[in-house]
Amino acid sequence: MSTRLVVIGGDAAGGSAASQAKKRRPDLDVVMFERGRATSYSACGIPYWISGTVEREADLVARTPEQHRAAGIDVRMRTEVVGIDTDKGAVHWRDLEAGTEGTEYYDDLVYATGSVPMRPPVDGIDADGVYGVQVLDDGVALRDELDSGRVRRVVVVGGGYIGLEIAEACRVRGLDVTVVDKSATPVGTFDPDVGAAIAEAVRCEDIELVLSDGVAGIDVGPDGRARAVVTESGRELPADLVVLGLGVRPNVRLAREAGIPLGTSGGIAVDQRMRTRVPGVWAAGDCVESVHRLSKQRVVVALGTHANKQGRVAGINIGGGYATFPGVIGTAITKICSTEAARTGLSEAEAEAAGYAFVTAAVDSTTKAGYFPGASVIRVKMIAERFSGRLLGAQVVGREGAAKRVDALAICIWNEMTVDEVLSLDLSYAPPFAPVWDPVLIAARKALEAVEADRG
Amino acid sequence: MSTRLVVIGGDAAGGSAASQAKKRRPDLDVVMFERGRATSYSACGIPYWISGTVEREADLVARTPEQHRAAGIDVRMRTEVVGIDTDKGAVHWRDLEAGTEGTEYYDDLVYATGSVPMRPPVDGIDADGVYGVQVLDDGVALRDELDSGRVRRVVVVGGGYIGLEIAEACRVRGLDVTVVDKSATPVGTFDPDVGAAIAEAVRCEDIELVLSDGVAGIDVGPDGRARAVVTESGRELPADLVVLGLGVRPNVRLAREAGIPLGTSGGIAVDQRMRTRVPGVWAAGDCVESVHRLSKQRVVVALGTHANKQGRVAGINIGGGYATFPGVIGTAITKICSTEAARTGLSEAEAEAAGYAFVTAAVDSTTKAGYFPGASVIRVKMIAERFSGRLLGAQVVGREGAAKRVDALAICIWNEMTVDEVLSLDLSYAPPFAPVWDPVLIAARKALEAVEADRG
Repeated sequence: MSTRLVVIGGDAAGGSAASQAKKRRPDLDVVMFERGRATSYSACGIPYWISGTVEREADLVARTPEQHRAAGIDVRMRTEVVGIDTDKGAVHWRDLEAGTEGTEYYDDLVYATGSVPMRPPVDGIDADGVYGVQVLDDGVALRDELDSGRVRRVVVVGGGYIGLEIAEACRVRGLDVTVVDKSATPVGTFDPDVGAAIAEAVRCEDIELVLSDGVAGIDVGPDGRARAVVTESGRELPADLVVLGLGVRPNVRLAREAGIPLGTSGGIAVDQRMRTRVPGVWAAGDCVESVHRLSKQRVVVALGTHANKQGRVAGINIGGGYATFPGVIGTAITKICSTEAARTGLSEAEAEAAGYAFVTAAVDSTTKAGYFPGASVIRVKMIAERFSGRLLGAQVVGREGAAKRVDALAICIWNEMTVDEVLSLDLSYAPPFAPVWDPVLIAARKALEAVEADRG
Repeated sequence: MSTRLVVIGGDAAGGSAASQAKKRRPDLDVVMFERGRATSYSACGIPYWISGTVEREADLVARTPEQHRAAGIDVRMRTEVVGIDTDKGAVHWRDLEAGTEGTEYYDDLVYATGSVPMRPPVDGIDADGVYGVQVLDDGVALRDELDSGRVRRVVVVGGGYIGLEIAEACRVRGLDVTVVDKSATPVGTFDPDVGAAIAEAVRCEDIELVLSDGVAGIDVGPDGRARAVVTESGRELPADLVVLGLGVRPNVRLAREAGIPLGTSGGIAVDQRMRTRVPGVWAAGDCVESVHRLSKQRVVVALGTHANKQGRVAGINIGGGYATFPGVIGTAITKICSTEAARTGLSEAEAEAAGYAFVTAAVDSTTKAGYFPGASVIRVKMIAERFSGRLLGAQVVGREGAAKRVDALAICIWNEMTVDEVLSLDLSYAPPFAPVWDPVLIAARKALEAVEADRG
């Protein structure tokens, strides 16, 4: 009898794990369960499909069930795994369409169930007209609502990346949009000064921002449908549609029930090779926790790029190869209307929480030589450790061509460079691409001055 | 009597050294000699001013003589240093306007004379109508010619960065432009496969490229003016104007005469702090040689970004501080019409010459998620050391938004990362900025496969 790999979840992590394992060990029996209607799609692309920027839902799908099947993977769509028996090496499944149930035995199991949207425990949260935007099926439902023409006013609860991206998508469709967030600035993973710049950009696009105000409840009409969001300060925000953008938490219910240990962060604990603590059981994607290379803490970061890498690592190892996932440093990027923002490493609050003492420096520069047509403003902020000058974090905000430059900063942080070392880097220069002192280098100069001034 | 710093050359390196030294030691007497009509200007910006993309000549000037003077620097414009006496600690100067001469004594000297354009030793090279584009005054003369309306046909000798940028500038002005280069592909610092992509881009803009053909001579009319470029294969290319784009060599005549030692590359030998081997004499900018961190050879790289950094380092040290210039890795970037290209580290030929054995990998990806509007093609090529997988070089070619991504690769190389390590990097991802596997990561995957296949 051949060896069998069972994969729970057919999106980025599960799909990558299945593909890699099958590619390396063609004799492997691979069964992949997916409770939704799509495999291997870009969840991050959903807002752009909702806005119409991306035309076809199919464009978001990197690999269809048929493509997975052509690669020899037995894909079971619309089939939910409802239990795992790690002693017997079995999963119990239910076909959501046919209503049938069954058991599948495994030699190796990949747990790749992704995440679930956070839902505040307030009245009305389960009413009709309240949507998460987590899986593609959510996006389909949301878009159907918007296409129905019934919706004029949208309230987005939570001003994180997805919240703002959905807000923008609705604005692009001409709707009235309000975003409510209990923090003083949106996208709390940025420092407040950068967050303020993002808030300004959002308001410029006629999206109403209600900040420093949480959601107290959702007012539901006699038809059972949400009709307003009520805030903690008592404001009532009329809504034909409510979207939850409060972020996500790892989907670990099945794992917990099966005794697959979680880590301190609430995600599934895995080692360097993506093995859980239960023999034969691997995990990857939004449901696992990763090591943050700077804080040294375990964190859950739900992001397609990590999910793909982790799935690949699990698949290579299951396929008899060797690969590791060496952790994250919190790099993230977003485009809100014409403003781009990105971050990497630790924010001030995160650095503080991790026990670092630090100085900060921020500079305004341009994406091209200052005299070059089309040069746009770019702000680079650095957080550097006291005394050592080690770069701990960086944030970039600007317009076209600004934010992707965060990658350079991410690689500096990954390599534990000091701002003094960053300042000497041989970065590319020509007038259409940067001032002769690249914005990254100018920021490093200023951060070095701050480190030196602090040393006294 | 106060201490005196004399600086020869008032552009990027000299201007930075003077400014830094004066800032740190306000008591320092600083005299800066500049034989041209401008200080601290962007030589790299000249092509864009010639094309009209940059409107005013003054836009290219980062710091005018008046601004330097306001900072307390005694700037002597249009004054050429004609000799250095290192025993006496003196320079001899000549005022090019007034014709007067004199001597200035120094405690510290910064030699920052820049570079001179290569001139092939052929007949007619000194004729009227043959221009280098090295200093701003060259650019002024060239632009005057073009503004005169007499010029319809331009031949550019040499298809390097400056050659192509000037060719484009002339094309933007509606002129007929031909570029002659003796290599099989232009911009020889790129590998031939990337060079071929650049050649195609250049030809798409109706610039004629004559490749694999050197310049044998310049045909001069009875008026003493160049009227055609004659190639080694015997082609005659009519020209109302000839521009030399063959690159530059360090301007070291004065140093050689004064006994300031040169290095193996022909540039002035300096240590980590930009000290020459003569006590009290420093050097910085296009005239010095630097360590290439990968080949470990000494190289001369004439680039404003290095000149600024080296000038800063010299100035800090002269001013009593401590700073070093840790070398270069050959990063360069250019925009030719709508094509962007960049390189970092070693090319295949350079890696070969340095004694490395390597594998290569190239991938075509997109600057945004493939399904995202405006995604443009980006090609990333990697050169990785055999067995170790260390990244030795990378080249990027594409359109809008492609080439500046080379910085990420430059930082990987700077930190001696292997392609396996690069593959794990936490780079930024969102659909408007990259596919879920960033082009850099895809290239690293493919390079890792090549390294593994080679290991056998």
